[in-house]
Amino acid sequence: MADSSAPTRVMMAVNESSLKGYPHPSISCRAAFDWMLSKLVRSNADGFHLLFLHVQVPDEDGFDDMDSIYASPTDFQTMKQRDKIRGIHLLEHFVNQCHELGIKCEAWTKQGDPKEVICSEVKRVQPDLLVVGSRGLGPFQRVFVGTVSEFCVKHAECPVITIKRKANEAPQDPIDD
Amino acid sequence: MADSSAPTRVMMAVNESSLKGYPHPSISCRAAFDWMLSKLVRSNADGFHLLFLHVQVPDEDGFDDMDSIYASPTDFQTMKQRDKIRGIHLLEHFVNQCHELGIKCEAWTKQGDPKEVICSEVKRVQPDLLVVGSRGLGPFQRVFVGTVSEFCVKHAECPVITIKRKANEAPQDPIDD
Repeated sequence: MADSSAPTRVMMAVNESSLKGYPHPSISCRAAFDWMLSKLVRSNADGFHLLFLHVQVPDEDGFDDMDSIYASPTDFQTMKQRDKIRGIHLLEHFVNQCHELGIKCEAWTKQGDPKEVICSEVKRVQPDLLVVGSRGLGPFQRVFVGTVSEFCVKHAECPVITIKRKANEAPQDPIDD
Repeated sequence: MADSSAPTRVMMAVNESSLKGYPHPSISCRAAFDWMLSKLVRSNADGFHLLFLHVQVPDEDGFDDMDSIYASPTDFQTMKQRDKIRGIHLLEHFVNQCHELGIKCEAWTKQGDPKEVICSEVKRVQPDLLVVGSRGLGPFQRVFVGTVSEFCVKHAECPVITIKRKANEAPQDPIDD
């Protein structure tokens, strides 16, 4: 079989780690990325084109910002700007890895509710495959598929791969995830 | 990147078409198989090892068998034997295709409730990936993920890819599926 057809376009939603914080990607999305490289892309770097989406959740950093005082519209502007920079740094991590491996990629950020934004971006970008990491096998709930991945499996208009994390990859306290 | 690592073992549950009947595979599982070849395996036939499972549902052929009379234990034996042969013919279809494409594969049948059997076989065989076709975008329910695929996404102990069928691939009457 010659591989002359267009590369397989794989979209991946990536998010920040709440354990290690900025600018580290979450355990789930790093595990999903590594799995995808070793099990799907393998040696066929030319056959795949990766698309990284980071969705910025407007209220995501509520706790970090408890000490902040927003006294003017400019303060909000600064916060939004900072969140955008964080998202860009997160994407940079994955883009750098792809670059080292010779895999073509694109990355972008969007604001909103992750599950809704992911599905609307799938509709717009029309990837061949959407990869979603899931917190998976936790210590208390042996099998749990998060609402984002569950929503995407049902609503995204392309095949979806759900990669559950192994129990030993989960942090002790779910809040550290 | 050299592709010297062990091939990616992809397990796929296949079922018979209730529209075209024996020995045709269902629209969903044919679509899932074709998608997998063109989008994941691509030219890298050596990098993948396919595992086909057909689950025989004990009561599946109730309607076909309405005229049958089971008067002795042998009659049931004959029916079971016939179902097994059907399953084997279905698997033969996929094994032949893999053989033509130079992709290594294995195929086997098991009896029971498909969703339970698929997940227990994942546990036993430990594939890298489970592929499940789904009836997907039907004419009345724009997005519907069947109970088998939904169960597998939640419970199978490996990454799961759900491949929804496009609306134009669905038969008019869901009973013909």
